[in-house]
Amino acid sequence: MSSSEVTMVRVYLTEGERLLPTIMAKLHDEEKVRGVTVFRGISGFGKSGVVHSSTLLDLSLDLPVVIEFFDTPAKVSGILTHLRNLLPAGHVVSWTAHVNE
Amino acid sequence: MSSSEVTMVRVYLTEGERLLPTIMAKLHDEEKVRGVTVFRGISGFGKSGVVHSSTLLDLSLDLPVVIEFFDTPAKVSGILTHLRNLLPAGHVVSWTAHVNE
Amino acid sequence: MSSSEVTMVRVYLTEGERLLPTIMAKLHDEEKVRGVTVFRGISGFGKSGVVHSSTLLDLSLDLPVVIEFFDTPAKVSGILTHLRNLLPAGHVVSWTAHVNE
Repeated sequence: MSSSEVTMVRVYLTEGERLLPTIMAKLHDEEKVRGVTVFRGISGFGKSGVVHSSTLLDLSLDLPVVIEFFDTPAKVSGILTHLRNLLPAGHVVSWTAHVNE
Repeated sequence: MSSSEVTMVRVYLTEGERLLPTIMAKLHDEEKVRGVTVFRGISGFGKSGVVHSSTLLDLSLDLPVVIEFFDTPAKVSGILTHLRNLLPAGHVVSWTAHVNE
Repeated sequence: MSSSEVTMVRVYLTEGERLLPTIMAKLHDEEKVRGVTVFRGISGFGKSGVVHSSTLLDLSLDLPVVIEFFDTPAKVSGILTHLRNLLPAGHVVSWTAHVNE
């Protein structure tokens, strides 16, 4: 199957940071990235060491959200540069992959 | 820890495409892939640019789903070839990883 | 954008195995890994071939859960060694990535 190289990106946030709508709007309206998917975690912790999790008793906690997208290496490099002020250090992970054509 | 090489695959669909049951049945019954996990996103957009998301007011939208699986590079290569007519171009991302033994 | 190398890890479990709290406690309290996110899948199957999925009629099935974390290659290597008795063979996938600084 023929394929082309892409850079995969995962951005780790929590719902409480309220960065998700801003970043999604930029990826959609300005960067016009090929595809973006947002996932909500059921538990997690970050540098603070505080555990964020959902239980039946308390669904309102500050849950983790992950924004995942991929595009050509050059385009992703530009996006990460444009958005660097929005993206907290240590929260954006990327790697090389291939996409089917 | 000893490990062996695998190819990781993520297939990006939306619930409305109704491809999920067909692909899952093939991966399970025919391809007998080692392990498959399906995730539902809470928001996303694809080539169409249309944003798919879930809100309290509207849980019935066409949400993103991702099928993730991994197996030996040779087996994954065969699977992607067998399923290529089911898998829309630009929606299957794969990369090399290692699994514990 | 400057970045440093990390190892990404995904650990595939099911809720019924009840390993999640034990592993999370170790990652948080002992290993002090930089960040961990837990995702619940909506469907999946493993080596047993049994399909685990959620439907409106039956929300109590043994759903897949994935623990994802990343840290420096040396630290992840140590973590996987320390936890190897808790981590079933064939259920821990890792690969090299980069994180923003």
